[in-house]
This record gives sequence, C-alpha cells and structure tokens, in this order.
Amino acid sequence: FSTPACGGGPSVMEDLLARVVAPLPTYETRDKAPPPPELNSLEFMNFYKSLEKEDKLNLLSKLSQDFGVDHKGASELAVKLLDTQLRDLATILQVEDRLRYSLVPRYRQLLSHISRVEGGVKFLVDLRSDLLEIISSKVCDTAQLRDLNGTLRSLLSEWFSVGLLKLERITWESPCDILQKISQYEAVHPVRNWTDLKRRVGPYRRCYAFTHAAMPGEPLVVLHVALTEEISNNIQGIVREFATLDAEEDANKINAAVFYSISSTQAGLQGVELGNYLIKRVVRELQSEFPHMSQFSSLSPIPGFASWLQGLLSQWRKEGRGLELLSEQEWRTLEEATDCTPGTGAIDALRKLIGTNEWTRSERLSLLLEPVLMRLCAWYLYGEKRRGYALNPVANFHLQNGAVMWRLNWNADTSPRGVANSCGIMVNYRYFLNETSQNSALYLQNKLCM
Amino acid sequence: FSTPACGGGPSVMEDLLARVVAPLPTYETRDKAPPPPELNSLEFMNFYKSLEKEDKLNLLSKLSQDFGVDHKGASELAVKLLDTQLRDLATILQVEDRLRYSLVPRYRQLLSHISRVEGGVKFLVDLRSDLLEIISSKVCDTAQLRDLNGTLRSLLSEWFSVGLLKLERITWESPCDILQKISQYEAVHPVRNWTDLKRRVGPYRRCYAFTHAAMPGEPLVVLHVALTEEISNNIQGIVREFATLDAEEDANKINAAVFYSISSTQAGLQGVELGNYLIKRVVRELQSEFPHMSQFSSLSPIPGFASWLQGLLSQWRKEGRGLELLSEQEWRTLEEATDCTPGTGAIDALRKLIGTNEWTRSERLSLLLEPVLMRLCAWYLYGEKRRGYALNPVANFHLQNGAVMWRLNWNADTSPRGVANSCGIMVNYRYFLNETSQNSALYLQNKLCM
Amino acid sequence: FSTPACGGGPSVMEDLLARVVAPLPTYETRDKAPPPPELNSLEFMNFYKSLEKEDKLNLLSKLSQDFGVDHKGASELAVKLLDTQLRDLATILQVEDRLRYSLVPRYRQLLSHISRVEGGVKFLVDLRSDLLEIISSKVCDTAQLRDLNGTLRSLLSEWFSVGLLKLERITWESPCDILQKISQYEAVHPVRNWTDLKRRVGPYRRCYAFTHAAMPGEPLVVLHVALTEEISNNIQGIVREFATLDAEEDANKINAAVFYSISSTQAGLQGVELGNYLIKRVVRELQSEFPHMSQFSSLSPIPGFASWLQGLLSQWRKEGRGLELLSEQEWRTLEEATDCTPGTGAIDALRKLIGTNEWTRSERLSLLLEPVLMRLCAWYLYGEKRRGYALNPVANFHLQNGAVMWRLNWNADTSPRGVANSCGIMVNYRYFLNETSQNSALYLQNKLCM
Amino acid sequence: FSTPACGGGPSVMEDLLARVVAPLPTYETRDKAPPPPELNSLEFMNFYKSLEKEDKLNLLSKLSQDFGVDHKGASELAVKLLDTQLRDLATILQVEDRLRYSLVPRYRQLLSHISRVEGGVKFLVDLRSDLLEIISSKVCDTAQLRDLNGTLRSLLSEWFSVGLLKLERITWESPCDILQKISQYEAVHPVRNWTDLKRRVGPYRRCYAFTHAAMPGEPLVVLHVALTEEISNNIQGIVREFATLDAEEDANKINAAVFYSISSTQAGLQGVELGNYLIKRVVRELQSEFPHMSQFSSLSPIPGFASWLQGLLSQWRKEGRGLELLSEQEWRTLEEATDCTPGTGAIDALRKLIGTNEWTRSERLSLLLEPVLMRLCAWYLYGEKRRGYALNPVANFHLQNGAVMWRLNWNADTSPRGVANSCGIMVNYRYFLNETSQNSALYLQNKLCM
Repeated sequence: FSTPACGGGPSVMEDLLARVVAPLPTYETRDKAPPPPELNSLEFMNFYKSLEKEDKLNLLSKLSQDFGVDHKGASELAVKLLDTQLRDLATILQVEDRLRYSLVPRYRQLLSHISRVEGGVKFLVDLRSDLLEIISSKVCDTAQLRDLNGTLRSLLSEWFSVGLLKLERITWESPCDILQKISQYEAVHPVRNWTDLKRRVGPYRRCYAFTHAAMPGEPLVVLHVALTEEISNNIQGIVREFATLDAEEDANKINAAVFYSISSTQAGLQGVELGNYLIKRVVRELQSEFPHMSQFSSLSPIPGFASWLQGLLSQWRKEGRGLELLSEQEWRTLEEATDCTPGTGAIDALRKLIGTNEWTRSERLSLLLEPVLMRLCAWYLYGEKRRGYALNPVANFHLQNGAVMWRLNWNADTSPRGVANSCGIMVNYRYFLNETSQNSALYLQNKLCM
Repeated sequence: FSTPACGGGPSVMEDLLARVVAPLPTYETRDKAPPPPELNSLEFMNFYKSLEKEDKLNLLSKLSQDFGVDHKGASELAVKLLDTQLRDLATILQVEDRLRYSLVPRYRQLLSHISRVEGGVKFLVDLRSDLLEIISSKVCDTAQLRDLNGTLRSLLSEWFSVGLLKLERITWESPCDILQKISQYEAVHPVRNWTDLKRRVGPYRRCYAFTHAAMPGEPLVVLHVALTEEISNNIQGIVREFATLDAEEDANKINAAVFYSISSTQAGLQGVELGNYLIKRVVRELQSEFPHMSQFSSLSPIPGFASWLQGLLSQWRKEGRGLELLSEQEWRTLEEATDCTPGTGAIDALRKLIGTNEWTRSERLSLLLEPVLMRLCAWYLYGEKRRGYALNPVANFHLQNGAVMWRLNWNADTSPRGVANSCGIMVNYRYFLNETSQNSALYLQNKLCM
Repeated sequence: FSTPACGGGPSVMEDLLARVVAPLPTYETRDKAPPPPELNSLEFMNFYKSLEKEDKLNLLSKLSQDFGVDHKGASELAVKLLDTQLRDLATILQVEDRLRYSLVPRYRQLLSHISRVEGGVKFLVDLRSDLLEIISSKVCDTAQLRDLNGTLRSLLSEWFSVGLLKLERITWESPCDILQKISQYEAVHPVRNWTDLKRRVGPYRRCYAFTHAAMPGEPLVVLHVALTEEISNNIQGIVREFATLDAEEDANKINAAVFYSISSTQAGLQGVELGNYLIKRVVRELQSEFPHMSQFSSLSPIPGFASWLQGLLSQWRKEGRGLELLSEQEWRTLEEATDCTPGTGAIDALRKLIGTNEWTRSERLSLLLEPVLMRLCAWYLYGEKRRGYALNPVANFHLQNGAVMWRLNWNADTSPRGVANSCGIMVNYRYFLNETSQNSALYLQNKLCM
Repeated sequence: FSTPACGGGPSVMEDLLARVVAPLPTYETRDKAPPPPELNSLEFMNFYKSLEKEDKLNLLSKLSQDFGVDHKGASELAVKLLDTQLRDLATILQVEDRLRYSLVPRYRQLLSHISRVEGGVKFLVDLRSDLLEIISSKVCDTAQLRDLNGTLRSLLSEWFSVGLLKLERITWESPCDILQKISQYEAVHPVRNWTDLKRRVGPYRRCYAFTHAAMPGEPLVVLHVALTEEISNNIQGIVREFATLDAEEDANKINAAVFYSISSTQAGLQGVELGNYLIKRVVRELQSEFPHMSQFSSLSPIPGFASWLQGLLSQWRKEGRGLELLSEQEWRTLEEATDCTPGTGAIDALRKLIGTNEWTRSERLSLLLEPVLMRLCAWYLYGEKRRGYALNPVANFHLQNGAVMWRLNWNADTSPRGVANSCGIMVNYRYFLNETSQNSALYLQNKLCM
C-alpha cells in the first residue's frame, strides 16, 4: 500500500528529511549544541517503519545523497591543511580537527540521536539490515549508500563494543521467549522440536549468548558447546543421539569443550565482531568451571566444499585431467559400481555419484571415496584462497580468531544436508588460547594458516 | 616512588607504548584486522595505574605526541582530495573516506580496545579525569593533549549514549553501597548522616540515577526530587525540616516536582551530556506515576552571585557610582546600622555587610537589603553573559536544557553556605516540557534566555 | 527388584523405622528436646524412594500401625481428665494439654523433621500422593492409614497456608521449565503445542499460579483467564480460534474475566484448599489492573452429565417414563431421524443418539435436543445432590467458593470430549466478590445453592 | 486514649470477638467448612492494633477464656474413649480423632485464618510478643493465657519450620533497610556506626540471616562470623581493631570460623528453634566455600558470671569461707593494693575490687586475679545448674546444640560491659559437626556437658 498518502510520496519524504535531519552545528558550537527534540527521531522511526520496501530504498538513497558530507567545505579545509603544513604543530592539529569534523556526514547526527530513543538501537540494527540487503542485491548500489553503511557500521561497532555486552548462559530455566529465539536462530544444525532444544541446554551441553542493554531479551550471537570426553569427530553424537535428558553431569567425564554451532542473529550487525569475542569469553568461563579442561575445539561444517569439488571435476574433465585421483583398481571398482565407461566417463560418473548421497549407503563406495575426498577437502581448506584469505568462510572465521585446523573427520555429518554440502566431512578448528593472538596475526599478515 | 624501575623510566615507558599501541591497519585491511591481544590492554592499564601523578603526565604526553595522526599521510590525502574534485562522486567519496581514516589518531585504537576489557570503560573515564586535571592545571597544556581529550570524549559520548543508560530509582531498599555513594556524591546540599539520607529517599522524595552496564554499581548522575503541593521557594523545608520518616505519601497533596539537587559523579565524563537527559527521563517517569502533575521546576543555587556582587560594588566604589542602589532613607538606615559615614563609606559598609552573614540576623537589615539584592541578582542571572551564554553555570545548564527562569526566592537558603554564596537567594528554573526544545534552540542561537 | 537386600525386607524396614522414628519426648521435656539428627530424615527419604510400590505400602502400613498414638497412655489421661472435672480450671487445662499431647502420633515428629530437610516438603507431598492412591484403591484401607493421612494433611495445611504462597503471573517470558509444566498440568483443555501455549499466556489472556518457597519452580495450582468483552458462552473462541499472537491488548475491549481452566498439580495436596484462594487473589489482582472490570465468571465443564443422563434414561425406560421429555411432534421428528419405533424404542433411540456425537452434525437434531438437554442439565446441576452437596464436583467447587450458577451455554464445547462428557454444554459460575462469603456459608449450611 | 469508643469498651470488644471468632465446624463438616471471610481477620487485626496495652491484655484474656476448648465436649469424648477400649482398633482410632478435635481451642481457627492474610504472620508474631510480656510480667498470668501461648507457639513452629526459611548472606551490597535492621538488632557487641557495620559485612567477616517468605525484608535470626587463622581468644581483635576495609581476603589465611554474635530479632518467636539451625546451615555453607576449613567455634560472652560471683563471695563471707581462694602471698598483695585488713575484710575488698573495673588497669592485680577468676568461671559454667541444665543461658544454648566447651579466655572482652558482666572472660564453644547430635542428646538426657 505504498501510496503517496502513507508517506512514500517524494514531497512528504523530502519534507520529513528536511525537518528531522538537523544541519550539523558549526565547528565552534559543536559541543554546545543541544540535541534536537526526541520527537524528530521518533517521527523518522515511525515514518520509516511504515514504508514499503521500495520506499525504504528511496528514503535511504535520498538520506545518503542529500544529507552526507559537505564536499565543498571539506575541500576548502583540505586546501587550508596544505597551507598550514609549514606552520606550528598546534595549528596543524587544529586544522586537522576541523577537517575531520567536516568529513562527518550530516546524517550521522540523526543516527546518533535515534540511538538515544527507546528501541532506537534495535531500529538502527534493522535499518542496516535493510541497507545491506539493498547493497548486496545491487538494485541500487551507490557510493553514497556504501558510505551510509560505513557510518552505521562504525557507530554500531562502538555501541556493541564488548565492554557493553553481557554474557548469558541459556538453560531450560531461561525465559521461554529467549529459548524460542535460540531455537529459531540456530542455522547450523536446525532444532527439530522442544525436546531437542531442551537437550541442547541440558546436561553435558552449554549454550551461551551475548546480550546488550539496549536490546533486552535479544541474544545477539549464540554459541552451543558440547562437553565431551574427547574432541568429537562427528555431529550425530551431539545433536541426534538421544542421551537421557535427566542424566547428571559427571565432571570426571568432561575433558573437552566442542563448539558445534555459532550463530549471529542480527543481519544488521554484519562486520561488527562478536563471535570471536564470544568464543574467547566462553573458553574463560569454562576454564573457571572446569579448571582441568584443556581441549577447546570447534566441530565445524565445510559449506561449499561439494560445489567447489563439482566445479573442479568439471574443469578437469574439460582439461582431460583427474585420472590420477584414483588407482586403476579403484577406477575399475567405480566403473563397476556406476556402470560407466572408463576415462572421461568415469570422471562424469564420479561427479554424478558425488551429486547424490547414494554412495553413503554403500560401504564399498564409501571406503573407495574416503581417501580421495579427504585429500581434496584438505586442499580446499588449506589451499583455496580469496584475496589471500581462506576461501571457505567458516575456515576464515576460525583462522582469523587464531584457531588452527586440527583434524578432518569422515562420516562426521551424515544428514542429507551434511552430505550435500561437504560429502559428510567436518573439521575441528582447535583453540590453544595462549597462541591465538600470534596465530591470528600471522594468518592476517602472511595470509598463511598453520 | 617514581623510580625508573617501577615503570616511570623513559625507556620502560617507550618500550611499553611501542608494544601495546599497535599501528593502525592499512585502509584496505581496516575491517579485517583482528583485535590485538587483550593482554596489551591489560598491560597498559596496570602500568598506568602503577604510576605516580607526574609519570602519568609523561605517559599521556608521549602517547598523544608519538601515537597521534600521521600528518604526512593526511596531507597527501588532502592533495589527492583536491585532485579529484572534478572526478565523479564515487571517487570523491572514496578519497574522503581515506582522508577521514587518515585523520584517526593511532591511539584511538588502543582506547577502543581497552573499552572491551573488564573494567576498561571505568579505567578510561578515570584516565580522562586525570587528563582534564592536567589540561586545566596548565602544567602541560599541549595541543596534542587536547586532541587526545577530544578523541576520548567522543568515544565516551558514544558509549554513554542515553540508549545505553539505565534509569534507576534509589530507595532505602537499594544496596547500601549505592546509597553510600549517593550520600558522598551529593555536592549541592551535603548529606549529614544516614537519617538525613533515609529522608532523601523516603516519602515525598524521589532519587534517580543513571547507571551503565559497563560500570555496575556506579551511579553516573544523580537527581534528587521533592514532591510538594506547590513549587518550593526555599531549601530548608526540603532538606532540613524533619518530616516524619514513616509518613505515607498522600498523592492528593502532590502537585509539583522540585529538582533540588543534581550531581554528576564522574569527572571523566565532563562534556558528555547526562544531566539534561536525566531530568527529562525523570519528568516522564513522574508523569506516568502522577498523571495529573503539571509543575516541574528546579530549586537551584546561584553560586558566584555574592563574589560577583563584591566585584561590582568594588568597581562602583572606584567609579563613585552605586548611590542609586538605595533611597536616601535606606542609606540612612544602613549608616545607622553599620555606624559608617555616608557616601563612599556607605558602599564600603554595604560590601562589608554582605561579606558577613550578620545582616541575616537583623530583620530590619534584611528587609532593607531584600529589594536591592533581588534586583541585582536578577540582573546577574539575566544580564551577565560569557561568550553570549549565561555567566552563571547553573543558569546556563538549565537554560540550555530549555527551562525558563521562573522565580527568585528570598531567604531560600539560610545555611551559612547559602548566605555566603548568594545572600540566601535561590532560583526556580521551570520545565514546560513541550517548550524545552524550542527554548533551548532559541537560547543557543540567539543566546537569549526568556 | 524388591529384594530384601534393597531394603524391602521386613527386618531391614523394621530396623530402619525403629532407628529413625524417635520416640516422642515426654510431656515435660517436649520443648527442650533437640531435633534428631537430620541424617535420620535423609535416611528415611532415600530408603522410601528406593522402594517398589508394594514395599512402600508395607512401609506406610507399618509406620501407621507401630508408630501411632500410645492408646494406653491416652486412655489413662482420659481417666485423669474425668477425675479432674470438679477441680479448678487450671488443673483441667493442664490435663487437657497432656491429653492433647498424648494423642499426637509418634510418626508426626518424623514428618515434621522431614519437612525441615531440603526437598523434604516435596517428598511429603509425593508420599501423601502415594498414600491417597493406596487408600482409594482399597488395597489396604486401614483405619491407621487414614489416620496417617489426616496427620499429613493437617501438617501440609499449615505449610501451604496462603500466607506462605506466592502469586506468580506466568508469561512467555517466564522460565521455560515452568511453562512446560503449565502445559503438562493443563487437564481441562489440553494444550496442543507451544504455539497454543504461547497464546494462553499472550494478549487477552492471563495465567496465574501459586508457588511455595519450599518447592521452587513448581506451580501448585494454575488458573487460566481470558479477558473478554462479555462473559464467554463457549470455549472454542478461547482455546481454538487463533487470534493473532502479536495483537496488543486494548483495555477498552476488556470488561470481563473468564476463568476457563483451573488445575491443581499436586495429588498430594488434596484437601488443602488452594484453588478457592487463587481465584480470589486473581480477582483482586485483575481489579487493580483493570479498575473498571466488574464481571468475573468461570466457563466450566460439566463432567458426568452425559453418563448421569444415560443412567436416568435407562431407569426411565425400565419404569416406562420419560415420554413427556419431548412433545409428540418432537418424538416424531426423532423417530424419523433415527428410524426407530415409537414408545420405549424412542427412549432407546434417544439414549443411543446421545451416546454418539452424530447429532451435533445435524442442525435439525441439534435444535430438537437443545431444550430438553438444557433442561435436564439444569436439573442435574441444581437438583442432584450427594450428602446435601452438588453431585457435580465442579459445581460443588464453585458453589463452596461462593459463586453462583449464572448461565448454561449450548454448543459451548464442541470438541469430541465436550460432547461426550456433557453434550457440549458448559456453565458459567459467576463471582460477585462481596457476596461470596455469604453465598458460601449458605451453601454449606443449608446445602442450597442460589 | 483507651476510651470505650476507641474499642476498648467491653461490649465493643465482646461484640467483635463474637463476630470474628467463628465457632469450630462440627467434626463431620471440619474438612468441608469454607474459611470465614478474610474481612473477619482484617477487622480483628485492625482492632487489636488500635488498642492500648491494657486493652490488649483484656482482649487476649477474653479470647483465651471464652473461646478456648469446649471442656464439656472434651470430657464427654473422654468418657466415650474409655467406653470403647474393648472395641476394635478402628473405633478407638475414630474416637481418639474426635477427642483430639474436641481439644482444639476455638481461637486456633482465628489464628490460622489470620496467618493467611497479608501481614498476618507478622501480626501473630507481634501478638505473641505482647502475650509473652503479659505472662512474664505476671500482671495477669492465667492458665488460659498460657494455653493460648502454647497454641500460638505450635502454629508458629510449623510456619517457621526450617524448610520454609531462606538463608541470606548479608553484604554491603544488601538493601540498606536490611543492614539498618542488622545494626539495630545486634545485641551482643553493639554496632557503633556505619563504618563499623561495613566492617562486619566486609572481608574476613560473614553475616548470615534466616528470612521467611511471609515476612519479607525482616531478618529473623542473625549470625556474625569472623574468618580467622586460628580460633580467636578475644573480641577486641574482631570488633574493635580496625582492619582496612578494602583488604582482599586471602583464603590461605582462613582456617577457622568464629561465631561471635547470634541474635534473634523477634521476641514473638521465643521457643521456636532458629539459632541452632542457622549455625548448622552456616557451617555447611562455609564448608562449601572453604573446603579445608575445619575449626568452627563460638566466641561467647558469659552474662551473669560477675553477679553470680558477687553472690557467692557474699555468702562465703557470711560463712567465713573463701580464704583458700588465694595463697597467703596473694592475699597480702591484695591487702596492700586495696589497703584493707586481712580476713573478712579481704573478702570484702575482693568483692569491691571485682565490682569496679579498676583492677584491669593494674597489671599486678590482673595477674593476681586471673587464676582465681578463671577457676571460678569454669566452675560457674560447668557446675552451676538449673533443673539439670547449665545455669548460664548462653552455655545452655550451645550445649543443647551439641557444641562443647573448649577454652576460657582471659582479657577476652575488655569493654566496660565485658568487665562488668564477666570480668572480661569469654568462652569458646566448639562445634564438631559429626558429634553435635550425640553431644546434644547426651546433654539433654544426662544433663551432663562434656
């Protein structure tokens, strides 16, 4: 119902923006200026929320175009800065400060004021989520929208600074609305029902979340941990095999903490580092609960491996390569099993085989494929880079955090999804706490992972 | 014990800074760069806390000088910005963004990381308190220290944004450590003992504070309110006359809310607006508790009036002016009372009289002085400006908030302090909520108060 | 595995009882005697919990037989009481007190000490639940077991006195384990899933429970309320028709509170009045939330009506009565519809018809049956008594509470259960708060309901 | 203002009682009878609270006399019980139950209903406090008032059963109103000011209290503990020597827990065992906080020792005994110091000396007196009995709890009060947890303390 009446109309929108986006105070009065009336922020928020998707795009475009940096002012100060280069330091510093202030977009002030209103921070997180969708959909990717996004991101980074976050342990005694959200947000290994959920917060499990004072009742990033005797090599034992719900934990049986799922819940907080901090906070928490625990590791999926593999095989086929993947004996086995002709046909057969999950039901095929898939997967994780970083996003996340790739696990996720995504392979990234800083620095500088 | 060994020594300090103040990531990697190890922040904090005052000064000087903006890089980008003025907008925006990034001082990153550590935000608030003391003491006022201060202030402004603050009502059921702090922080009308304190949070009183998740148990700004039948014209009835502690509030007797004390507790949050927001939050809170309440007013001291008056009289004496202050009859009364000679001597006698509080004990003198002191006080508050704003800081605070000067009150603070500071006069600044925005804007633009 | 080894063996049991059920102190030392060691209570609790059903019965029998009142001592004091009848009052009072003490069963002290141990009160509630099952199953109904039951009930009545109960409102923000219990305990209109549950604690609904400090996390009695424009005449609109979960309550649309379900959760608290108090506490709670609300009513099922009706018709058939139930015209309609012969056959047909729920699908039959079933139901509720009280237990509960029967509702519960139990009829018992005391007293004295 | 109008008048009082103290239901309807309207309880409570002391006495007298047991009914049932002695057990049990019911005073029901009203339990605790005062003042000690007291006490014992109490640790973060009460209730070593109070809940100290759901914010019994390296031999080091308030506890320095003060706060709960349970709960709490702690001991005053000693000396003087108390050499020293004549005069001098605290300032006298006073004190504590129990009430309390007398300490309480009460001597009663049950039983049976 995007009629002009409801607010989408250009003149209504322009009027509103002109009214609520106050001009920046002059440099001289910047510390004295009173905040604009709270009503301005509320009016903007209500107007925006009432808009249809398309009109939101229009509004954000207009905001970013007409209420950004005063380019003329900035360039004048740039001239001035150059003129003062030979002057004393105090003068230079002052011009720099003026220049810095001139580079503040006018809308930054609106965003800042909105954050002060009840529900304002959550509003901005959601607005940025819309903005990211617009930018990534390339419907209307302008330089100005990216600038708006950058401004928002840096504001959110300050507000969601770790010092302002609260670690909460989620249990079956936590409020139901929180648990329902935990269930909905779980993207890695979907929660099937409330019994399943109860198990994930029950004995031998821990579930932690960061929350923020400005968004009460809203877990921002959620980490699921299994407490095990040794580092798990498959996910079935964690999320599918039913342990009794009422078992009491025996601390003597707990030697390892396995992070088997980490989910960010707010699209609008993309690029604001939370997961890394959560993992490290949780490690400290667990160390104080279990002083003798020394093994901390993820059990991570490898999204994209299967489709990367299909691409590779397809290219090899074109290039007539790939026969060295298997021994002659193995090719023959494959030919028999798939009823195909040798040579190019066999590569095709291999592709087709991997494309389904039927091979998982044949022990012979499974044994045949294990060494080759494990080898290729190791290469995918170690060797495939994008701009120097690991191509696989999960690998990149953990390596940036300073974890090390520790073990590939065959038959680790036998769910249809697991087989389709990564031929059932999962990987452990291990956290040696006193080495993560160094690992992380090395990874980012040398773009090498250990 | 500021020996080199304990850390003050230049080389130890320089080593430390070089180690913990990481270089800024390049513009390209600024979003990817991992945070430096938390240990860096902790090391800096512990080192700083162990220092003597003088060495703190050294450290902050060095930090602000050697780890600030890369001036060369900034000027190069200024050149580049000028070169791109005729290019497309996207290019301009990008150079602006690079320039903006180049103007970020290197130490900003350290401050940001410290805020993420437990106790880090409180540490920075205290560090800024030291910094402000150094700057205002002019021991070492450099442009760089002011820049460091500006950076800290803008970071603190984001972290102490109102959306992140929590309003708490303080009662006799609040934790004892909070109440003890409330008592210590009360600067306007000192709390004498626990019974006095109990009354200030008891019936017909309200005490509110803002707290912040990163500084638990620490009230940041405290507002004391008296609930009265009409707007109070003196402070004695509020803080000195003992009402029974156990009286039950009768809502029918409550028509006005009188803000009789507001105190900021953290020197390091100077310039971060909190008091203004607290008053307005409290007005909303009270309106929801007492829907029919419509009178909101401060009962404020007028610090500086008496000493301003002494200066004025001293100058008038020199200039031979001031005789019009009183009628002939009144001068004669004064001469009699003070046993002085007419003319200049009388002005002297007046000065001397005001310099003590003896006149308060004489009804005749008191009656004599009331009209003249009230007139002069009105002029002091309305007419005396500094850079266009009210000279009196309390007046400036309330007028900036959008309140209006409403009534001067004679015999309003008969304590020795009250008489010494402002001849016992107090003033009500009244808050008409739907006019504060406009008033505030007018005050700041026209520098006129209504 | 009720082997002697595990504790069931007679000698083990007897040994245990002899050890843990301390003899009563003498009358003289009754106030000085120290409590027996807590270990005794724990030992008894662990032993009892380890027993199979049958052995529990043995244990309770033995406890009630061998550790009850000292009959000889009591009769001696009865003699003494008669001897003192002509003595002074003080003497009489003292003998009465000794006699009273002599009538305390020895096991009462054990029960009292168990209540002091952590988890002890819950243990006794569960033990009484076992005891009631034994008594009602008549496996072993002895006078002593009934005495034990009476002792337990009177102790529980003191511990679950309303002054010690806490009213809690259950919402979607309540702990998940509580909500799961609320869902499981709902006996009247079963909760189908979590969405259903969320609605029952959502807008236009209230859910309250009593909890007790000695049984944390355990709702004892649960009341579900619908907030409506007028007193509901059917349950479908409350528990089956989906209102949007996110609707905001409009207080202007709320005129009535309809109690549509009340469930006791602890079998062992039978006879300890909780429901009555809960309803009245909730009425007060709602009155303070909605000061203008004036209509409070239950919407109650009528369990037993259909089977009572079958019995009645069966008897009438034998006695050749019942033809006046319908008019001739109506009988004919019925005969047509059911294809039966007139006379006795028609009564049979009527019985058969009511025995199924097919008639609910025929508008004609439904119309035909409505007046007669409503009339009979009214008679069932008003006229059928057991020992002077309403035969129907739900009616008896509300009438004892002082409510009045207000309206019978046709087609009020169209679920299969509702039709099978009460031909789909439900009844409103209305609470006029300032009349309940009098109504209750009248009902109980005159055994008349208004 | 005890005028008849205000309620004290006999007819008003009688009317009220007749109205609010409902007759007991008959035995047959005792489980069915609805509670009387809550208004009855409220009316009684308000009436009682409005009365002057004297009228309270009248009311309680009347209540206990006119609304007690139906003596005639009781004696008839006593006859019946004797008649059934040869009948079957079920019949006997039933008559016993009827007899038991007939011995319930009519007012018990009123008390029970009052406990259900908000504030009712606290009301009854206070009413019993009045009642105890009346009884002990012997103004009006009747058998009936003692009966009323017994009934109240047994009801309160059930409601304040330990299973219903909550252990709370009091710290400087506890609500101010609680801390104020803790301060006021401290009877053993009075709290001087808030700094003193802060130390008593600070490092190396613990303060625990039992609270009850029906009396929120009201500590019922308070235990102060000092955590020390070894069992303290004086109180000065605990309550008078100022340790720094901000010291951090070093768990390695904590080997002993010294209970240096225990206070009951509710006179109306006399005879309801709380202190014993609190000490034992706290021991368990401390054991879980400091697993290696093994020494638990009181540091207790010895009230009454000095006055007992004066009595003893006075008697000895009359009987011409007591010369063996000191050696000749010691007598001479005493004679010199006090300037008295030998013989009877010396005993007089000794009495006089002990009657002041001057000897504490003379090292010589102090050394002289130490052995004799310590010896006499040991005798006082061990040997002086009242009805077989320790005469000293503090000793009796700890010995009943199962503690053992462990050490007498000279110069243990040098405050004027300490010297006046017990010549500065204090005693440690030590708790060996696994022996307290047995000790307690032995003490009570053999009336022997170990």
